[in-house]
Amino acid sequence: MTIMEHTSKITVRYYETDQMGVVHHSNYIRYFETAREEMMQHYGIPYSETESRGIIMPVHAVHCDYIRPARYGEVLSVVTRLEEMPRSRITFRYQICNPSGILLAKGYVTLAFVDVSRGVPVRAPGFLTEVLEKYLNL
Amino acid sequence: MTIMEHTSKITVRYYETDQMGVVHHSNYIRYFETAREEMMQHYGIPYSETESRGIIMPVHAVHCDYIRPARYGEVLSVVTRLEEMPRSRITFRYQICNPSGILLAKGYVTLAFVDVSRGVPVRAPGFLTEVLEKYLNL
Amino acid sequence: MTIMEHTSKITVRYYETDQMGVVHHSNYIRYFETAREEMMQHYGIPYSETESRGIIMPVHAVHCDYIRPARYGEVLSVVTRLEEMPRSRITFRYQICNPSGILLAKGYVTLAFVDVSRGVPVRAPGFLTEVLEKYLNL
Amino acid sequence: MTIMEHTSKITVRYYETDQMGVVHHSNYIRYFETAREEMMQHYGIPYSETESRGIIMPVHAVHCDYIRPARYGEVLSVVTRLEEMPRSRITFRYQICNPSGILLAKGYVTLAFVDVSRGVPVRAPGFLTEVLEKYLNL
Repeated sequence: MTIMEHTSKITVRYYETDQMGVVHHSNYIRYFETAREEMMQHYGIPYSETESRGIIMPVHAVHCDYIRPARYGEVLSVVTRLEEMPRSRITFRYQICNPSGILLAKGYVTLAFVDVSRGVPVRAPGFLTEVLEKYLNL
Repeated sequence: MTIMEHTSKITVRYYETDQMGVVHHSNYIRYFETAREEMMQHYGIPYSETESRGIIMPVHAVHCDYIRPARYGEVLSVVTRLEEMPRSRITFRYQICNPSGILLAKGYVTLAFVDVSRGVPVRAPGFLTEVLEKYLNL
Repeated sequence: MTIMEHTSKITVRYYETDQMGVVHHSNYIRYFETAREEMMQHYGIPYSETESRGIIMPVHAVHCDYIRPARYGEVLSVVTRLEEMPRSRITFRYQICNPSGILLAKGYVTLAFVDVSRGVPVRAPGFLTEVLEKYLNL
Repeated sequence: MTIMEHTSKITVRYYETDQMGVVHHSNYIRYFETAREEMMQHYGIPYSETESRGIIMPVHAVHCDYIRPARYGEVLSVVTRLEEMPRSRITFRYQICNPSGILLAKGYVTLAFVDVSRGVPVRAPGFLTEVLEKYLNL
């Protein structure tokens, strides 16, 4: 099996720190989102297009393990991986490293597919799975 | 002339601090928003109702002067004032004090009214001005 | 065994919504934090005091399952539970319900204890466990 | 007189939108901050270094005029300008345009300089003014 993988560079912004002097833990969840946006854009299926085709992808579950803190100004490497073809849900797995390559956090996010016009959960749409099938050999 | 005034109590949350050890300046703009939501709710015209009647209120201008820092856990008093009847725009004026009554920040926010269905700016809607006229004698 | 439980009322703020028209998923992690701040304050051990005694509590893991969306203006009930005496870590469990009592999300957050002056992980400090022992019978 | 100018490209992230379907107004204040961080980094005086030299720069005033909304996924151009040599304060002026070059917002942010060890406002430090003098001819 092949996996899909994409690395995003995300620079820690000042407003993302808290008074512990490091990045507030909630922002890692936002880094996950930004990294998956960049991955999908990289593969030609930006999320804005998914929404404009009438499919939204609400988050179903989030998990993050925090290992070491990220600090202001650091350029983080966020590796996003897709390991399975999505059906009714899609799971992205993440690793965040600092510029020295030290692992800071890892986690995953599972999203559903919802048809906006009908307001019901649906399977992964064809325009998405067609692209993924090129990269994910099952 | 009478003014309308409302005081909100807003407790500083941990995620609102930054690595200077105080509240990040962008959050005061969010406190302004929360205080004006509470004021409108208090006067029986919650913003959710304004939106459900097809009027959105995009922000037109924001200004904030920062005098002293707010700190984690403090219960801030945010005084919101309305001094003039809105026409095409409405201006809320703010003062934020800490629990000792010391002024931390002051500013204002001006908002417009937009009819969502037509996508055009409109005058302050009747259901809003009717309430305000009871309190703002011109 | 007894558990400790505390219910916080958190009103959804406008800036917490996203263009799906519901609360952005990252904000539930922030609601968890606010609810645990209120719980600790309620039991007389506010987190600001923990920090001023030289102990910080960095987050070790976060998990959230999203069931239904929260909407702007809703007053959410966030139930925070403590089920075990903390040793080197403490785990808070959460359930978030909307005003109709419908479960919107559930999850947990595990935090560590770090002695700031030495920069090392430590056991739960005495001033915390003494309070918890009154409520958590083992 | 010469001015210093720097253009940052900032991509709108999903979590920055609100239920109006556009970027929440508070995030422009954060874009201003990110743009000024990038400008200072570009000129060799990153803010992280300013802080590590014992000088923090709390915000003194913020102003933003909103002209048109920014939308999810857009790559914004944020032009940051410095027009005067800082003394006790420094003012950055901003213009934000969308990818079509249409002006979305403009504003300014004034910051002070504070010596952390003594906790008092000071003049712009030499390591900063020396760099600025190379570019700002008075």
